[in-house]
Amino acid sequence: MTVKRLETGPRMSQAVIHHGTVYLAGQVGEGVGVAEQTRDILAQIDSLLARTGSDKSRLLSAQIWLADISTFAEMNAVWEAWVDPDNTPARATVEAKLAAPKYLVEIMVVAAVAG
Amino acid sequence: MTVKRLETGPRMSQAVIHHGTVYLAGQVGEGVGVAEQTRDILAQIDSLLARTGSDKSRLLSAQIWLADISTFAEMNAVWEAWVDPDNTPARATVEAKLAAPKYLVEIMVVAAVAG
Amino acid sequence: MTVKRLETGPRMSQAVIHHGTVYLAGQVGEGVGVAEQTRDILAQIDSLLARTGSDKSRLLSAQIWLADISTFAEMNAVWEAWVDPDNTPARATVEAKLAAPKYLVEIMVVAAVAG
Repeated sequence: MTVKRLETGPRMSQAVIHHGTVYLAGQVGEGVGVAEQTRDILAQIDSLLARTGSDKSRLLSAQIWLADISTFAEMNAVWEAWVDPDNTPARATVEAKLAAPKYLVEIMVVAAVAG
Repeated sequence: MTVKRLETGPRMSQAVIHHGTVYLAGQVGEGVGVAEQTRDILAQIDSLLARTGSDKSRLLSAQIWLADISTFAEMNAVWEAWVDPDNTPARATVEAKLAAPKYLVEIMVVAAVAG
Repeated sequence: MTVKRLETGPRMSQAVIHHGTVYLAGQVGEGVGVAEQTRDILAQIDSLLARTGSDKSRLLSAQIWLADISTFAEMNAVWEAWVDPDNTPARATVEAKLAAPKYLVEIMVVAAVAG
């Protein structure tokens, strides 16, 4: 029962791997507007997945929180340009106020890794 | 590390199977009122689980979002009539605005499958 | 494909174990204020994990909902005093109205267990 962790801080780890599954922390991003923040978040997810031996074609599940659900289409445009269209994850998107007002979107994913 | 997907669209898959676990997308339903929408959602979940070789007695975890938390009891009545009482999942229910105003409830589950 | 459940009620189980992973139900707590409720919740999580053969050093992922996101720092102080700093989980925290107005915080975790 080995658990591996990446970027472990006193509050959370950015990635936790167990039994061939990696759990990423909810990612927020910098940028003006939902599209820019979503792009920043997805780049962070790419980077974290790469360091665990996974990638976006192995996504299992995603949760997306939008500070304002009226930005759903704007987020989706960036999301759909990013995902592997043949390997999209299960997903749910709801509105929620995030940890700081500057954050407009947060994304948390689970993915498959080798092992 | 095989990942299997059902109803894969450009945005999400409705079900993703990995390591004996199936992750369903958040399901929303049609109908007037929370009870009717919940029944519709649970029928969709039954159908998706059946196609993955799972069923509601193998639910591991569920997240439920209600557009109005005051409908908690109404949703629970339908939920409790549906679940296998000896095999209920871990669950959390919170209020959140959903992707469109017509949606009053969304449910996302994780279940065990053979393999 | 064995699934084990603890404290199974007609609505949910408090813990569900499958393939070396335990899924806990969202926990709420008693107490005046977020700090006190968070301490109560984390004690419940300790107890449930212990009964599944797991513990807080094996946390994989956590979701935290705050009824008022302005209590983020207050919750985090209790959280950071509790977690194993070398083994923190992936985590996301958002604001959401919970099942009853008296509940100020809810926490749902996934952890590794032997087997």
